[in-house]
Amino acid sequence: MPEDSMFITGVIPPMITPFTQNGGLDLTAHAANVLRWNKAGLRGYLVLGSNSEAVYLNEREKLRLIEQTRENASPGRLILAGTGMEATRETIHLTREAAKAGAHAALIITPAFYRSQMKDEAQIRHFQAIADASPIPVLIYNVTKYTGVNLSPRAVEVLSQHPNIVGMKDSSGSIPQMVQYQKAAAEGFNLLVGTASAWYPALTLGVTGAIMALANCAPEHCVRVQQSFDAGRKTEAEELYRRLFPVNQAVTATYGIAGLKYACTLRGYQGGYVRSPLPELSGQEQEEVKVILEKAGLGG
Amino acid sequence: MPEDSMFITGVIPPMITPFTQNGGLDLTAHAANVLRWNKAGLRGYLVLGSNSEAVYLNEREKLRLIEQTRENASPGRLILAGTGMEATRETIHLTREAAKAGAHAALIITPAFYRSQMKDEAQIRHFQAIADASPIPVLIYNVTKYTGVNLSPRAVEVLSQHPNIVGMKDSSGSIPQMVQYQKAAAEGFNLLVGTASAWYPALTLGVTGAIMALANCAPEHCVRVQQSFDAGRKTEAEELYRRLFPVNQAVTATYGIAGLKYACTLRGYQGGYVRSPLPELSGQEQEEVKVILEKAGLGG
Amino acid sequence: MPEDSMFITGVIPPMITPFTQNGGLDLTAHAANVLRWNKAGLRGYLVLGSNSEAVYLNEREKLRLIEQTRENASPGRLILAGTGMEATRETIHLTREAAKAGAHAALIITPAFYRSQMKDEAQIRHFQAIADASPIPVLIYNVTKYTGVNLSPRAVEVLSQHPNIVGMKDSSGSIPQMVQYQKAAAEGFNLLVGTASAWYPALTLGVTGAIMALANCAPEHCVRVQQSFDAGRKTEAEELYRRLFPVNQAVTATYGIAGLKYACTLRGYQGGYVRSPLPELSGQEQEEVKVILEKAGLGG
Amino acid sequence: MPEDSMFITGVIPPMITPFTQNGGLDLTAHAANVLRWNKAGLRGYLVLGSNSEAVYLNEREKLRLIEQTRENASPGRLILAGTGMEATRETIHLTREAAKAGAHAALIITPAFYRSQMKDEAQIRHFQAIADASPIPVLIYNVTKYTGVNLSPRAVEVLSQHPNIVGMKDSSGSIPQMVQYQKAAAEGFNLLVGTASAWYPALTLGVTGAIMALANCAPEHCVRVQQSFDAGRKTEAEELYRRLFPVNQAVTATYGIAGLKYACTLRGYQGGYVRSPLPELSGQEQEEVKVILEKAGLGG
Repeated sequence: MPEDSMFITGVIPPMITPFTQNGGLDLTAHAANVLRWNKAGLRGYLVLGSNSEAVYLNEREKLRLIEQTRENASPGRLILAGTGMEATRETIHLTREAAKAGAHAALIITPAFYRSQMKDEAQIRHFQAIADASPIPVLIYNVTKYTGVNLSPRAVEVLSQHPNIVGMKDSSGSIPQMVQYQKAAAEGFNLLVGTASAWYPALTLGVTGAIMALANCAPEHCVRVQQSFDAGRKTEAEELYRRLFPVNQAVTATYGIAGLKYACTLRGYQGGYVRSPLPELSGQEQEEVKVILEKAGLGG
Repeated sequence: MPEDSMFITGVIPPMITPFTQNGGLDLTAHAANVLRWNKAGLRGYLVLGSNSEAVYLNEREKLRLIEQTRENASPGRLILAGTGMEATRETIHLTREAAKAGAHAALIITPAFYRSQMKDEAQIRHFQAIADASPIPVLIYNVTKYTGVNLSPRAVEVLSQHPNIVGMKDSSGSIPQMVQYQKAAAEGFNLLVGTASAWYPALTLGVTGAIMALANCAPEHCVRVQQSFDAGRKTEAEELYRRLFPVNQAVTATYGIAGLKYACTLRGYQGGYVRSPLPELSGQEQEEVKVILEKAGLGG
Repeated sequence: MPEDSMFITGVIPPMITPFTQNGGLDLTAHAANVLRWNKAGLRGYLVLGSNSEAVYLNEREKLRLIEQTRENASPGRLILAGTGMEATRETIHLTREAAKAGAHAALIITPAFYRSQMKDEAQIRHFQAIADASPIPVLIYNVTKYTGVNLSPRAVEVLSQHPNIVGMKDSSGSIPQMVQYQKAAAEGFNLLVGTASAWYPALTLGVTGAIMALANCAPEHCVRVQQSFDAGRKTEAEELYRRLFPVNQAVTATYGIAGLKYACTLRGYQGGYVRSPLPELSGQEQEEVKVILEKAGLGG
Repeated sequence: MPEDSMFITGVIPPMITPFTQNGGLDLTAHAANVLRWNKAGLRGYLVLGSNSEAVYLNEREKLRLIEQTRENASPGRLILAGTGMEATRETIHLTREAAKAGAHAALIITPAFYRSQMKDEAQIRHFQAIADASPIPVLIYNVTKYTGVNLSPRAVEVLSQHPNIVGMKDSSGSIPQMVQYQKAAAEGFNLLVGTASAWYPALTLGVTGAIMALANCAPEHCVRVQQSFDAGRKTEAEELYRRLFPVNQAVTATYGIAGLKYACTLRGYQGGYVRSPLPELSGQEQEEVKVILEKAGLGG
């Protein structure tokens, strides 16, 4: 995929990774999910985002997931891969391997283990070194709830000027900060909203790309919010957004990845199991997720 | 090393990992450091603790470091290895490999990426599964400043009853919490203090083992605090502890791992470089570290 | 003001409180400011909000400020007063006094000193008791950055059903949370956005009232964002919002109340001094504020 | 009390404030408590500390509590009063009134509402201005869990040099930080530990004064830890400290002020009610507190 097509508009699911009951990677289930997602109007797929339990996968598993996605995705779908590691050199290594396995671009999380040292300057050097070395375009992944790091608008200003850094997924959920990022970023930089809870407001501010957990279990609905908005039917877009909101809350904040996977299963996907130490839902929690989906019109 | 010798008293450095200027693992420098540490009265060595930049190492590098430590450590020195990964299964895998490479016991950090889900129950299941599967004894590593997770005394109570969970390194720095852990833990559980800033107070409370960054650059001094205390020369122990305090502050909180490595270099060890994205010290900061060492009588 | 007029749409400044150089309350300057604000199309005034340094005022000063506002405000302007104290009984006392002094409604901050005990149930009992006893309508004030407390949508759901609790100012800046509050709140509940950084996005979601610091120094501009939006000139509204954004950032996050007061002074109001222990701006910081105003077209 | 007697060694309870069921101040109950505390070997009393619900009291009530304490305290008991307000000028006012009412010294909490502005420099100016104006000696009160502010050792170094700033109560619970404060503070500065959970470790480090919640319901026991330590019976001191630990945990972290008051009632004091919005204990919680006291040998 040539770089000039690296304009990202539309919805991308940060795909779940189905596991078997004993924790094995279930590539068959993953392929089935991709084939089903192909039928929704999605812009592409993110392999190895935070909802994929990527921190629980080894390198071989990661690359197999990218390949499997590549083999099953409809033509024209953008394939992003989360290749961020704590070390710059390990990130470069994995990004190169991901490119060979078929990823079109890499989404790279801010390093965070030595948090007090991971200030703007360290982040800037990290991302620049990776972008210099990467054969594929790079996007920044800002996800404060997992990392405790929040990239400043100034850092985004600097990084957005690198020719191989083409965008950022911001999962902070802060609309005011997104406005600051928009002002800071260079022309053509792809600012992607990272949660369905900010989808409609982001659209009203001209953000047109999104990577969001909810698109795993309700891809058509997420796409329709944008289509209605683009067609000028803003009330319809807003209403759908509000209707989906409680489902999004459930499959992210309240029930986490196990909740997202269970919602996928209820919606006809192959959610599978989570890997330990993540806990599975209790029977009671499963019932609650079911009710929330039904109330939003996403039941059976 | 038979399990009945798994009583840990004394000082253990969480060893730094020397890198070459281009970021390569410098195993020769590591061996030289171990040979020099052999001359101090240390209880053993921790490979792959947080000060080792373990999150920046791949599996092969990790195992090479364990082997190199094993080959160069004096007989009788306990070799601990940090083998904690986010996933239970990956942790089990690495722990087994570490045992083969020569580690006597494994120090395992609390998983933390999906923080809001990593409650007591998830931690307990994680550590129990690892302890069941591990061929070597397991110690828990509680280090809130990096993980955002703080293991409750109740979780320690439960885990300490597992026959293959033999201790815990607590790096919270909280003396009151250590008193709670003491009360909660089963007989014979090795509670180790994780920072030199709590060393003397911990000794007064009957804690007799410690894994602390400062022991990289001032091992004899750290050992002497304990020896003086044990010999009933408490004032001498307390004075030395207070004298070392500012150095410890410098090589941990203020200047981080780059500061610790530079202090090691000044003290005759091979500190080497840090790996990116960790920043190196500026010339000005190096000067400050030098002055702090000199003021504490650890200069030249 | 009869309760049925308690529908709040439009912009309300949380007024600064001018002090003399020696820290005395400058009521003359305050009156002059109100007279000037009367010329902008503001919906009303908030006396004793967080930008007023209310925590630095004694009761007599607080009541004098309400009276002075009442005496100088144009007819029809809604006068809100911040009467929240830590104790329920003290809040009731001050709210009654504020009503006598001329406040039309009370804005009451969540109690927060004993944070770990100030859960939903405690907050609900606090606000219900106050609303029961208050002669004037009550609005909730949720301002996490000062209190560390964040009121849950469920608590808002319960409280919004009280006939004398008519609204809430939410200063969290979180648009997704505002959407949750909208869903939770009873019909007719006034949800007010608490920061200019969320003004345009809030309008797109049907929020039509705002209490924001920026309205102290740029009231007409804040009003114009709404007027343009209401007239269907959304692009104009959005552009103005984006133009004001850096000024808002300066007079809130970056330079605090001293910055807001200095901006007021530059814009022809009587900003006056802050009270100790708040620090005044340095000369350098004053220069920076000036440049930021000029860049936004709010200079001279 | 002349300033040269301002050497504070021994135990001081931060006294609870008994309220009647309808929230009224119960001065009679307070007097009865003081008379009973007079029989324990306490160094003095703190009126208006955080355990007193001082933030729920108006000025008149505060002064009446000081007077009542003064009238009932045994001769020679040091009377400290918490007079810190957010504003420098209000703090000076209340400190002067407290001195007139009989306080020997003032304990002043770090201002915290505008947290991001309350850096070292602002704190230093605040405390210096108060110390300059106060007719009685001033002690700093560092209590991060309520304020979110943590005074740096450098700030303590500067402030300890003021002739009218004679000490600090540190309730952070951090023993390592206390060691830093000891190094930073001027000769003769009274460093007081603020929680029973650090009492024995503090004694081993030469800290000889303490203000702690537990001394409300178990004053003799708190005193006996110190007496045993001073008499060289360190094991006895340590054992008692460990025995009291769970009670301290209960009456502070777990059950808060309502728990402390209930423990006081069980121990023969007049605990009384808490003021709203603080919640009372449930019957179940009361039972739990009772059991904890009994297990520690403080029952009936």
